[in-house]
Amino acid sequence: SARSVLRAAYATAASPAWAQPSDRFEHRHTGSGQKDLQEMLKAVGVSSLDALIKETVPADIRLNRALNTPASKTEGQLLAELKAIAKKNVIARSYIGMGYYGTIVPNVILRNLFESPAWYTPYTPYQPEVSQGRLESLLNFQTMVSDLTGLEISNASLLDEATAAGEAMSMSFAIARQKANKFFISKDCHTQTIALVQTRAAALGIEVVVGDHESQAFEKDQFCGAIVQYPATDGRVLDYSAFVQKVKASGAVTACATDLLALTTFKPPGEFGFDIAFGSAQRFGVPLGYGGPHAAFFATKDEYKRLIPGRIIGVSRDSTGRTALRMAMQTREQHIRRDKATSNICTAQALLANAAAMYAVYHGPEGLKEIANRVHGLTLALAAGINKLGVAKVDEKAAVFDTISADCGSDKKAAAVIDAAKALGINLRQLGRSVCVSLDETTTPADVADVLKAFNAGKDAGLSVAELCAAVTTKLPANLERRSPFLTHPVFRLHRTEHEMLRYIYRLQGKDVSLCRSMISLGSCTMKLNATAEMIPITWPEFNGLHPFAPVDQAKGYKEMIDGLERALEEITGFAKVSSQPNSGSNGEYAGLMVISAYHRSRGDTNRTVCLIPTSAHGTNPASAVLAGMQVVTVKCDENGNIDVADLVAKADAHRDRLAALMVTYPSTHGVFEETIKEICRVVHDRGGQVYMDGANMNAQVGLCRPGDIGADVCHLNLHKTFCIPHGGGGPGMGPIGVAKHLAPFLPGHPVICTGGEKAIGPVSAAPWGSASILPISWMYIHLMGPDGLKRATEYAILNANYMAARLSKHYKVLYTGKNGRVAHEFIIDFRPFKASAGIEVSDVAKRLIDFGFHPPTMSFPVAGTLMIEPTESESKAELDRLIDALIIIRQEIAEVEAGKVPRDDNVLKNAPHTAEVLLAQKWERPYTREQAAYPAAWVKADKFWPSVSRVDDVFGDRNLVCSCPPMDAYE
Amino acid sequence: SARSVLRAAYATAASPAWAQPSDRFEHRHTGSGQKDLQEMLKAVGVSSLDALIKETVPADIRLNRALNTPASKTEGQLLAELKAIAKKNVIARSYIGMGYYGTIVPNVILRNLFESPAWYTPYTPYQPEVSQGRLESLLNFQTMVSDLTGLEISNASLLDEATAAGEAMSMSFAIARQKANKFFISKDCHTQTIALVQTRAAALGIEVVVGDHESQAFEKDQFCGAIVQYPATDGRVLDYSAFVQKVKASGAVTACATDLLALTTFKPPGEFGFDIAFGSAQRFGVPLGYGGPHAAFFATKDEYKRLIPGRIIGVSRDSTGRTALRMAMQTREQHIRRDKATSNICTAQALLANAAAMYAVYHGPEGLKEIANRVHGLTLALAAGINKLGVAKVDEKAAVFDTISADCGSDKKAAAVIDAAKALGINLRQLGRSVCVSLDETTTPADVADVLKAFNAGKDAGLSVAELCAAVTTKLPANLERRSPFLTHPVFRLHRTEHEMLRYIYRLQGKDVSLCRSMISLGSCTMKLNATAEMIPITWPEFNGLHPFAPVDQAKGYKEMIDGLERALEEITGFAKVSSQPNSGSNGEYAGLMVISAYHRSRGDTNRTVCLIPTSAHGTNPASAVLAGMQVVTVKCDENGNIDVADLVAKADAHRDRLAALMVTYPSTHGVFEETIKEICRVVHDRGGQVYMDGANMNAQVGLCRPGDIGADVCHLNLHKTFCIPHGGGGPGMGPIGVAKHLAPFLPGHPVICTGGEKAIGPVSAAPWGSASILPISWMYIHLMGPDGLKRATEYAILNANYMAARLSKHYKVLYTGKNGRVAHEFIIDFRPFKASAGIEVSDVAKRLIDFGFHPPTMSFPVAGTLMIEPTESESKAELDRLIDALIIIRQEIAEVEAGKVPRDDNVLKNAPHTAEVLLAQKWERPYTREQAAYPAAWVKADKFWPSVSRVDDVFGDRNLVCSCPPMDAYE
Ligand SMILES: Cc1ncc(COP(=O)(O)O)c(C=O)c1O
Ligand SMILES: Cc1ncc(COP(=O)(O)O)c(C=O)c1O
Ligand SMILES: O=C([O-])O
Repeated sequence: SARSVLRAAYATAASPAWAQPSDRFEHRHTGSGQKDLQEMLKAVGVSSLDALIKETVPADIRLNRALNTPASKTEGQLLAELKAIAKKNVIARSYIGMGYYGTIVPNVILRNLFESPAWYTPYTPYQPEVSQGRLESLLNFQTMVSDLTGLEISNASLLDEATAAGEAMSMSFAIARQKANKFFISKDCHTQTIALVQTRAAALGIEVVVGDHESQAFEKDQFCGAIVQYPATDGRVLDYSAFVQKVKASGAVTACATDLLALTTFKPPGEFGFDIAFGSAQRFGVPLGYGGPHAAFFATKDEYKRLIPGRIIGVSRDSTGRTALRMAMQTREQHIRRDKATSNICTAQALLANAAAMYAVYHGPEGLKEIANRVHGLTLALAAGINKLGVAKVDEKAAVFDTISADCGSDKKAAAVIDAAKALGINLRQLGRSVCVSLDETTTPADVADVLKAFNAGKDAGLSVAELCAAVTTKLPANLERRSPFLTHPVFRLHRTEHEMLRYIYRLQGKDVSLCRSMISLGSCTMKLNATAEMIPITWPEFNGLHPFAPVDQAKGYKEMIDGLERALEEITGFAKVSSQPNSGSNGEYAGLMVISAYHRSRGDTNRTVCLIPTSAHGTNPASAVLAGMQVVTVKCDENGNIDVADLVAKADAHRDRLAALMVTYPSTHGVFEETIKEICRVVHDRGGQVYMDGANMNAQVGLCRPGDIGADVCHLNLHKTFCIPHGGGGPGMGPIGVAKHLAPFLPGHPVICTGGEKAIGPVSAAPWGSASILPISWMYIHLMGPDGLKRATEYAILNANYMAARLSKHYKVLYTGKNGRVAHEFIIDFRPFKASAGIEVSDVAKRLIDFGFHPPTMSFPVAGTLMIEPTESESKAELDRLIDALIIIRQEIAEVEAGKVPRDDNVLKNAPHTAEVLLAQKWERPYTREQAAYPAAWVKADKFWPSVSRVDDVFGDRNLVCSCPPMDAYE
Repeated sequence: SARSVLRAAYATAASPAWAQPSDRFEHRHTGSGQKDLQEMLKAVGVSSLDALIKETVPADIRLNRALNTPASKTEGQLLAELKAIAKKNVIARSYIGMGYYGTIVPNVILRNLFESPAWYTPYTPYQPEVSQGRLESLLNFQTMVSDLTGLEISNASLLDEATAAGEAMSMSFAIARQKANKFFISKDCHTQTIALVQTRAAALGIEVVVGDHESQAFEKDQFCGAIVQYPATDGRVLDYSAFVQKVKASGAVTACATDLLALTTFKPPGEFGFDIAFGSAQRFGVPLGYGGPHAAFFATKDEYKRLIPGRIIGVSRDSTGRTALRMAMQTREQHIRRDKATSNICTAQALLANAAAMYAVYHGPEGLKEIANRVHGLTLALAAGINKLGVAKVDEKAAVFDTISADCGSDKKAAAVIDAAKALGINLRQLGRSVCVSLDETTTPADVADVLKAFNAGKDAGLSVAELCAAVTTKLPANLERRSPFLTHPVFRLHRTEHEMLRYIYRLQGKDVSLCRSMISLGSCTMKLNATAEMIPITWPEFNGLHPFAPVDQAKGYKEMIDGLERALEEITGFAKVSSQPNSGSNGEYAGLMVISAYHRSRGDTNRTVCLIPTSAHGTNPASAVLAGMQVVTVKCDENGNIDVADLVAKADAHRDRLAALMVTYPSTHGVFEETIKEICRVVHDRGGQVYMDGANMNAQVGLCRPGDIGADVCHLNLHKTFCIPHGGGGPGMGPIGVAKHLAPFLPGHPVICTGGEKAIGPVSAAPWGSASILPISWMYIHLMGPDGLKRATEYAILNANYMAARLSKHYKVLYTGKNGRVAHEFIIDFRPFKASAGIEVSDVAKRLIDFGFHPPTMSFPVAGTLMIEPTESESKAELDRLIDALIIIRQEIAEVEAGKVPRDDNVLKNAPHTAEVLLAQKWERPYTREQAAYPAAWVKADKFWPSVSRVDDVFGDRNLVCSCPPMDAYE
């Protein structure tokens, strides 16, 4: 608008301070004001923030200048500026398909889930007692996927369809016990799927065969697995019965890339006998978003349930025997399995899986079927129309769902159709001399008329789409028709009106603790403010409506925004180049290690495949290293939690000629700025290795020091931690990597849209810029804060951690500190002593915090029996004090047990959390009062959070794995 | 976008049904599907919906054709269509002032309050136990207003500044016991304020003197009151000490129209001795919205607390002695006072008052002061700049806040400046040969430079705004400076970061029952679905950003939308013309009666001032009649609740020559389609009277019958009932009136923007189209539903009521039914018998429903001791069944008391609602279990709502009236 453009001019005026806009963001983001600052510094025992930073961050790595990122502006100014950038995107109708389709987001879901902090701010549901809402929704997702694919077990999302194909391959390889090292992928799969599988396979030593699924021979025990696509990328829907038999006979695993909407009418993969089905749930109400975030799905047979990658929600019971949900088989998570893990996925796509599940709940089976019928019918009408025009040929005998391939006779003629379509505001896909058209939920008969026009050189085709439609029959051949019911669970029937849907969404969110309630002090997770102004742009149609493979001249706004963000991240990290392709932290790790490998290979160093990883590392590190084809060698930590430099030198020396990389988290996962970090980097470099820095703890570095300056060669950034992308209840995230100059040529490329370095490794995500549509969040954050604000945020993050540590250290042991007794932005409290003294485990403390209304901190990572607390800069002193007070009260409760005043096996901690139902029981025989249980502090009464279940039984659930919705009465 | 425009073409294609879009809205809005329908019809005992309607709606009024409103379209189609219309509005910078100012809505408030159904769907907080959240926020509003105005008592909002002036006059008149009938209003007040006061005064027989406050003489006991404006409409800030003394000495009440932002720096009205201060809180974070909705405020001295118009939130205590809030002095509400009421206001502007209060909480006193200082400073810089330019003269010696008046020498020269500004995208105000400029929170130095350019004939003025700013001193004269502190309560200090603000908003909403939780069956209130697609457009900048007095050529989108809506409402009501000016139902009543008066007068019928009103009428009817200068004569109802036609004839005959109008609600407030309605109209018409129909129950008429056809001459529509504007927790609403052809010339006009009939009465609202920015909600609803959908909605509303009545009639007495035993869209259950049988009052039942998680139905209106239930069409059978079951269980609980099994004064009903704290008490001596209290039905456990207070004590609160925030420890 005129107003916005004119107001943008503001920034140049140099008027007195009082004349500057006062709607500044920094003090909304960073929690402690000037007054609190003094009190906090006093508690910490330092004279100033600066003094604290000097005591905390080693002098030899400190950045002694301001960051050179854009000056801060107000929320209003930046929303106007970003809107102007976004408007440079052209939103055409994209019938390109390839795994991305137009969809209608139900408005009630848009406003109350996508745009609701109650849904987008929570963490991964590691603590089931405060997560029953989103666990139920994710279970709906799994049930939907199982039902539609016809396979027993589904997970709660993967990053995208192409990485899901990679996971299918890894899983097949694991089933073959790494013995059969060939892997088949049909040429009829999407281009990006094939390319990503090839990239992953090369690192794992798997030989990929891209071929024709009918003619391909499968010699016994040669192939570990095979992937075909259903419907194929060019639209054909094929009967894979014979293929499945052939492959199985050879001993290989069969996997099917598929489409949930098609499966409402077509026979499900499970009924063909496939072992695995996967794909993208995007078209179930998740916007195109220029490639993401979207939830991929993955389903398999019951026999493989312990090999399925990613998170699985399972049904269990709580301590009172009531049905309760939780993440199943967490023992499979990487920090347990480490280099034995078969997948490195951690942050997934929970929010998008929830959106897709809600879409299914909203439409129910009949509604989905109605949508599918329309898409299918219009596709057939289009095919008939094209053939009537006579300018191109569509095989009307082939079964199709939403996509047709029209043979135009020559590449040139096909290109002419593409151009004519573009002139009409429509993007189509060229496949050699054919033009492919993929219709979707948004397509109307008028759109079909336009496509026909494009085939008719832009002139009105003179065909009546209504007549073409009237002549269509959507009857499928018997061998391809779906006959089995799906979405029969009542949840897919009970919420059809907007009121019912709204209340269902609210009922579920009411069971969860999100940032709308209280601080979430999860160490290593950086649960800082996800500001509204940062979130607003991501649901703008200008960002939401682009197909990732739209012509790049339609994505100028995206390019400008991504460029701006990447340049800022380069300055913040001190690197030469950033790639925004990896769509999670662990995918960043994999991408970075692949870049390192490519670099070594480019220099003829083909032997450099050893990756040193400290014992303290996050489990994704070893898992990613293995995925990148490296051998993990563990480096010890000393009693202070720091890398044992002597051991590092010894291991580096021992593997000198094969040394590829060291992975190091900084500040360490123990919450400490290790003084020796530069030396550590030197040790590795001196021996020809590269330093991979895990940037999960970047929130302690921004503006104070830079990975590139410290000596790292690569670093990934969890934008969903330091750069304000909300965690979404378990995703989305973004894990861009920054690299030093010598590694830039190897940054990941993409087979459809040109990106990456000159010697680019293959794609690591399905879309060229990963989950592009959430990048505006980080763009906004960096621009809102400006260089000073960013730096101060880091300083306050460190202050807040040190303040909490200082106060808590009078009651608990703070496990690790740096040279001057300071912690970084997080710290670990040790609860192991209470096992002996009171029979109290760390989980008892975690669950007791729920009675106070707090989400427990990170439990038993990186050290078992501890809690790791990361307050972030966004919390006020008042909120920090509440959490501290809660922990102090808990210490007193432990003391009561230690003193023998209450039994070790029956006390407020052991029985936590307390539901209202338990506390209202007629009979009360516990050695504490109901009030003590419910209101352990006076302030709890003002806003009591009632958990919906008691302590959840993990063991029972894992023993009796159920991963789809239980019957309704199970909840009663 | 291209997509939207192209897709709009869709509607014309006539393809097969399967090819039509399936995202149809009607079945999302209307609750019961085909399957439920049969069961419900069976329970009611009719064969079809049609048969039920035939039995319910009298044959002689039935509309036997389809409505001629636009065909239904999908949510996506209509959002695109309305966006295209909205884009025809031009959003300029408006420095017009006159009570409307640019403001920055904090994004956290935008998303989590304005755009949150948890805040916009609840009803007026008549039931405090389920409303403590918004009661607290409204109390913050009152505290803010009291602090800033320096007066002890504030209400919780009025409709707009001009009607607030009208209320000040009525209150003054009441204080003078209607004896002194002159009223002074300064010529320095806003134009629309003066015009509205004049309109109201004429009806009340008050003589308005518009004059100069300095020269005006106030003879003893001649004037009941006087209004001045501070700052004045042209910007001057005057010292009113002498004026207040002068007026007081004459015995009149002094009132001050004022501005909350100015009051952060200027001496508050209370310190001048004013009795009343009022104004608009719009610029506290509420968008311009082309005139509304905004919250007006009204404050007065403690001595007048029982005369203050509108709702007042007061502090009281609950049955356990804990601090609890509720609406104070409800005995003043109109249905108690009726024609003795001094104001007719009912629905006010709660949502906007909450937004303004949250804005103050977010900024705190320092933040507000910072904003005020900037606005003030830039205004002074502008004045200096204009004088430097030498093209116009500003009196720099006069104290100003945000507005200056620049004397251009001639009208023509002033007009040239206005034009030059317009060319720069800026709207200014012409006042004779002067140009007024009002700056606001959004104004930047660059904007000031543009205004200077406008004064310089559009050429760069060559003045540095930075230098102008540097030269500014904002020091105020001592007699005008504010020295008293404000917003000292901790609530205005504790929520400054976005996290704290977010959590405060969530904490409050968690205490309230909104439509996000369960049905709200308030009879006479029509709490139907407020669909997201209807709500989305109202926060579009294209609707939000317009000043109500912007040149009409900038408001073409508004015009098109309002025209479309008015034409549809004319068709729905059967009237010739609709006016969208009245901004509440009761304001519609007043407007309609004023139109009737004007009509009578135009025919020389100056004696026609008697208004017949049945005893069953809503209390606003008599109050509005009095406000319109009529004498109320009451008409009896018979034992079936219908108008006693014999009594009507008798009264009409008795007042034959003076008969102005009958006010009649249809279907009746007793929930019945009276068979005699046509006859009733005839009786009135035959005697020269006009029929005013109260359209509050229009939800039972749409598509089935029409007020105009029935014989009404005027009818108001509560768009916040039948046409889906959410109730906002007590407003906003819109009360447009439809009139027959002979009344159209008299529809309300406006002194600034031309609107209304040729013989228009004066304005009834401050803005020409009332709360224009919420009209898109009703536009969307009507277009989404289409004629068939609208009609079916009415049929289902009637079915749902009859279904509930049928099931409940086995357990309770349904008080009134029509000729065939059918109720309309609502019905009354009688609880009076239980007083004797069990000592149970209707309020005990209402409060017990809270234990089930339900908002109680309408209590004791229109009949004391009853509940009136209006389910609306938007509820599913499952939800209706839950409410029915709850009431059946309650009947059993009453039976237990009747049977003497539990004491009459100590049972689940008497002690309801039960808070968790009460139930968790160590000692439990009640004659029922804790579980019985908390979980009266099995399904309650799945989503227990915990009230935050026990039964609230109204009497205590009214005796000890406290209307601003109590100290923090009061809550503990
Ligand atoms: C230290 C560390 N490294 C890596 C990761 C993995 O990141 P992501 O979950 O985005 O895959 C995490 C996630 O919590 C982490 O804490
Ligand atoms: C029958 C009736 N008439 C008039 C009104 C007044 O409408 P409003 O509250 O919009 O002023 C109401 C409000 O509930 C009502 O029920
Ligand atoms: O997600 C984590 O494993 O921290």
